[in-house]
Amino acid sequence: MLNVIRPDGNGVSATDRGVAYGDGLFETIRMRGRQAVLRSHHLDRMVADAGRLGIPVERSDLDAEISRSGRDMVSEYGDGDWVLKLVLTRGDGGRGYRWPVECEPNLIVTSSPMPMLPPSGGVVAAFSQFPLTVNPRLAGIKSLNRLEQVMASREFTGEEFELIMANADGQLLEGTRTNLIVRMEGEWVTPPVESLAVAGVMRQYALECLRAAGHTIQEQVIPPALLSSCGLRGLYLVNSVVGIVAVRRLGSVDLPVDDGLETICDPLKTLE
Amino acid sequence: MLNVIRPDGNGVSATDRGVAYGDGLFETIRMRGRQAVLRSHHLDRMVADAGRLGIPVERSDLDAEISRSGRDMVSEYGDGDWVLKLVLTRGDGGRGYRWPVECEPNLIVTSSPMPMLPPSGGVVAAFSQFPLTVNPRLAGIKSLNRLEQVMASREFTGEEFELIMANADGQLLEGTRTNLIVRMEGEWVTPPVESLAVAGVMRQYALECLRAAGHTIQEQVIPPALLSSCGLRGLYLVNSVVGIVAVRRLGSVDLPVDDGLETICDPLKTLE
Repeated sequence: MLNVIRPDGNGVSATDRGVAYGDGLFETIRMRGRQAVLRSHHLDRMVADAGRLGIPVERSDLDAEISRSGRDMVSEYGDGDWVLKLVLTRGDGGRGYRWPVECEPNLIVTSSPMPMLPPSGGVVAAFSQFPLTVNPRLAGIKSLNRLEQVMASREFTGEEFELIMANADGQLLEGTRTNLIVRMEGEWVTPPVESLAVAGVMRQYALECLRAAGHTIQEQVIPPALLSSCGLRGLYLVNSVVGIVAVRRLGSVDLPVDDGLETICDPLKTLE
Repeated sequence: MLNVIRPDGNGVSATDRGVAYGDGLFETIRMRGRQAVLRSHHLDRMVADAGRLGIPVERSDLDAEISRSGRDMVSEYGDGDWVLKLVLTRGDGGRGYRWPVECEPNLIVTSSPMPMLPPSGGVVAAFSQFPLTVNPRLAGIKSLNRLEQVMASREFTGEEFELIMANADGQLLEGTRTNLIVRMEGEWVTPPVESLAVAGVMRQYALECLRAAGHTIQEQVIPPALLSSCGLRGLYLVNSVVGIVAVRRLGSVDLPVDDGLETICDPLKTLE
């Protein structure tokens, strides 16, 4: 059984490993009324990532919590949009970094209002100066170890919607809270999961839609020069909450903006 | 004022950034009765690291909490040894990874019994298969982002005292919970702070003692071959709780053991 912690309860134990070591993972899910956007994708990803971290969890327990939260939040949000966050920690116990033989994970469930979405026409983004390091054994996992994203986020001035982070070689990987999908003449480009700190559910769904529509996808890290090349047709930032957002300016360079990805991929179709 | 959370209280908020992102840092302090070993070093390091992370904290508040914990734990530990852990988080609030303009950090204070120390004669260590990645901007900071150490710790079989972690190039950096100091013929070698995930207080104190005694220290990452070379005089694992522990076998290789470092460096002299 999953130990569920809700905001009206007693909070998280002072010795929970999620606090102590960031020993856990999370999902941020867009909700509309009682339903979740990309529900199956979020459940699949959480179970897979928990498996990679060795945290025992049942998909059905998570699914039940999404449903319960849906019911609980009707009085607050009605049929409107809101955001559900599920944080799964390894729970208490163990000796130092070593975890206990029998883990009792905690699921922390919180909700928040839907943020304002940017107007159409594209957003401004900038390059972060904070390098992103990715442990190959933890690549793509939306773990609670997010200090790099916190530190990069210091650079927000209020002008830009997102800061794009690069690895030590200057290759672009992802935004602080979004993944990157690039439309080139003839193909789409996105960094592969093994290069990413977080491989988002929206990224995955967008790639599925593109492949289903017969598009070619090149999975590679993104050299900055690609984004000022004449073959560029558009740069998209994607995550589960904002969906798909086009970038109209990156740093000092204006980029072409089209709605190609939104035409091919509509996550609201996945509500359940 | 620092908001202090103790184990007998209400726990940590479900939305504390320490839980959400590992947005914080910690100190693990060896106590003897009411006094702390390496007290000033721990306070200095915590203040410096909090500064690097932009978390506001007053040294005097932390010092007061060490004293308070010392008094609180007398009924449990008397004059004996125990371990005090201070976890400082950035507190609640902010928008996603972006932190609030006015931070209200939380200090989580917990205690635990002193672990058993290994017998003299040295311990067995093994090489971890889990790579250690270090963000150059976060090097050395004992932040709450410790998932790599958690995952490496899966490899403990019960035979070894510590697992030694390497970077992607196979250069040895540190143990899961200790730093490495190597005694060679004529000099001492230890990886530099900028290469480390955690630059421990005991490491720093040991280096100070060595320098004060006129020894030469080479700060470099450690090629595994160094530890099977004929110039090796000893390999030490150090942290604030265990102090200095010599390694008598690393993997399948027997190492020379001497008490050279313990002779030069006695952290119990720093009790206050």
